Amino acid sequence: MREAGAPGGGLLGRVLLARVVEPGDETAGRWVRELGVAEVVRRLRCGGEPLPGVSGTRWAGLVARAGRAEPERDLAVARAAGARFVCPGDAEWPGQLDDLGDARPVGLWVRGLPNLRMWALRSVAVVGARACTEYGTHMAATLASDLAERGWVVVSGGAYGVDGAAHRGALAARGATVAVLASGVDRPYPRGHAALIGRIAQQGLVLAELPPGDHPTQSRFILRNRVIAALTRGTVVVEAARRSGSLATARAAQRLGRFTMGVPGPVTSALSAGVHELLRGEAALVTDAAEVVELVGDMGDLAPARRGPVLPRDLLQPAARTVLAALPGDRVAGVEEIALDARTTRDEAIARLYELRALGYVERHGEGWKLTRQALNSVRSGHHPR
Amino acid sequence: MREAGAPGGGLLGRVLLARVVEPGDETAGRWVRELGVAEVVRRLRCGGEPLPGVSGTRWAGLVARAGRAEPERDLAVARAAGARFVCPGDAEWPGQLDDLGDARPVGLWVRGLPNLRMWALRSVAVVGARACTEYGTHMAATLASDLAERGWVVVSGGAYGVDGAAHRGALAARGATVAVLASGVDRPYPRGHAALIGRIAQQGLVLAELPPGDHPTQSRFILRNRVIAALTRGTVVVEAARRSGSLATARAAQRLGRFTMGVPGPVTSALSAGVHELLRGEAALVTDAAEVVELVGDMGDLAPARRGPVLPRDLLQPAARTVLAALPGDRVAGVEEIALDARTTRDEAIARLYELRALGYVERHGEGWKLTRQALNSVRSGHHPR
Repeated sequence: MREAGAPGGGLLGRVLLARVVEPGDETAGRWVRELGVAEVVRRLRCGGEPLPGVSGTRWAGLVARAGRAEPERDLAVARAAGARFVCPGDAEWPGQLDDLGDARPVGLWVRGLPNLRMWALRSVAVVGARACTEYGTHMAATLASDLAERGWVVVSGGAYGVDGAAHRGALAARGATVAVLASGVDRPYPRGHAALIGRIAQQGLVLAELPPGDHPTQSRFILRNRVIAALTRGTVVVEAARRSGSLATARAAQRLGRFTMGVPGPVTSALSAGVHELLRGEAALVTDAAEVVELVGDMGDLAPARRGPVLPRDLLQPAARTVLAALPGDRVAGVEEIALDARTTRDEAIARLYELRALGYVERHGEGWKLTRQALNSVRSGHHPR
Repeated sequence: MREAGAPGGGLLGRVLLARVVEPGDETAGRWVRELGVAEVVRRLRCGGEPLPGVSGTRWAGLVARAGRAEPERDLAVARAAGARFVCPGDAEWPGQLDDLGDARPVGLWVRGLPNLRMWALRSVAVVGARACTEYGTHMAATLASDLAERGWVVVSGGAYGVDGAAHRGALAARGATVAVLASGVDRPYPRGHAALIGRIAQQGLVLAELPPGDHPTQSRFILRNRVIAALTRGTVVVEAARRSGSLATARAAQRLGRFTMGVPGPVTSALSAGVHELLRGEAALVTDAAEVVELVGDMGDLAPARRGPVLPRDLLQPAARTVLAALPGDRVAGVEEIALDARTTRDEAIARLYELRALGYVERHGEGWKLTRQALNSVRSGHHPR
């Protein structure tokens, strides 16, 4: 981690860059890759010769923005909104975002208890039209709650329509859900979803690439979609008209080698036309959560459950160890019971349970949770007495 | 044509076999292939040593049926119902049925004016559930009429639901349609479709593998499906529950190397579940006739239109030549106008127009017909003055 601790680099440097550079700016990504954050920040701050790949005018604009940036203030505003800044090199950084290459986010603003890296390990995006039909709402909610019940994290964009239904479906199943916003993490967009996004931040995670206070624009929506695509193992499009933004997410997923899936609908519905277009290409047709999991659950390197826990119990964070210790050895327990036994909140318990799920310690059975056989064996073998 | 003209072989021999052998009996198919029709009929009639592959009891049953068979009477009954018998070796036999190997029909009973071989060249099957939804009816009718307007022949099974909607869609577009029955050609099944099947026999073709008077059984429906699959370039399943008979048609089409297509529907509809199952396999998702034609129209060897007429004008049947001569050289003409000019009926004109379409002479434009450029060139070059 070249930039860690360096003046102008590290956390503050990246917070500054997140303020100066638009999401997905590959030129800036190249600078960071080639020179390191500290050097890029230094050059932006001293405002000398432009870095390669930008005009003098554009460089002057970036330098002006860097001059106005107040990274400490951004961090303070975010902290007040309950958000932290997670960036490459951090233990919580989801490594799969590196697949974006130079378009990788400089960092992510994160609200919520769970560990982003852990949650992203077993996550699926469920996206679709804002102006969806009742069918779209129904399918998104059903898929999301069934995915959550199978121990999968449902990622979406927090928008009206399919996105909202997916988040609500996961929340209703006491499941894990992540909203990736195209605005600042403290500026829930759309405003009508402020309460929903607040609820997601309590029970799950709310992410933003843009710095606190920023508003979404059309291009920011599109660029946000690449984060959803890269973060997850696959993207399911539930309803989408032709030329819909959700198709951009699906195509980004395809380019990144993720699974792209679509839920078919009536040919007579314009809101299924975009999905059918996808399905006539490389995307897989899925009709339920089992079919989604059948696809995305097959990636050996990211599916630790079958091989048993990937992290020794002693290396778990104390909060996760406490929740793990609260699971009975011989039966399924509900979230409330586990939370009570671990002397913590329901939301905290959910956060840790999905992390433990990603690590292969627990599995979800309908409404409740259970230790995996591997976790039980490791207890019985006496190496990790509870 | 080994059996042509041979006593006990040829037409009468095959008519007898069609009475004795159940559709799709591969053992009998092998006998015919290895010994020829005449010899198989001779052995069945003299009732000696069983032919290979059947038990003595079964052989005795076949011999008894052969003894009761009255092929001349079958022909007379069929003739009274307006049907002819078309068998391998006949000019009208559709060669693609030979892909069925030993399960190839012994022959087909055919009602209707058009030439079966010509019509089958550019045909697509549209099949699906009997108890379909309104959505299924709508999609089947729309697909069929749009396929007919593109000059394609719509083949189906004459059943209630999707089949009936497909036939009606084609008929309504003054198009070409073929019903392949699982009963005798003189016993329209279901009874409630007697009028529809009668109309198909006037404007299109009604086929049956079973001899006159025979009734359908469950296994006969399934075996009929292989004829639909083999006759056409591809099969579109519009609506089908899991384990539906239409899926058998689709799978037969797949085995025969034909295109298999499915029309998606709501995941919430049990009548789309079978189609989605297909689409999750090898079948292509199609949402309209253009997409169907894009697939099935690509088979070079069966698509003569692009290379111009495949049959010299002088070799056309007189009826087809007359209809061809009735097309104006410079514009689209309606069926009525063409029929009037050719001094024939509308149904006869439709029969010949789709034959001429298969041969590359004419093309359909919406409601009317037009000479192809190739046909015009052959006129202009003076070789075939009208």
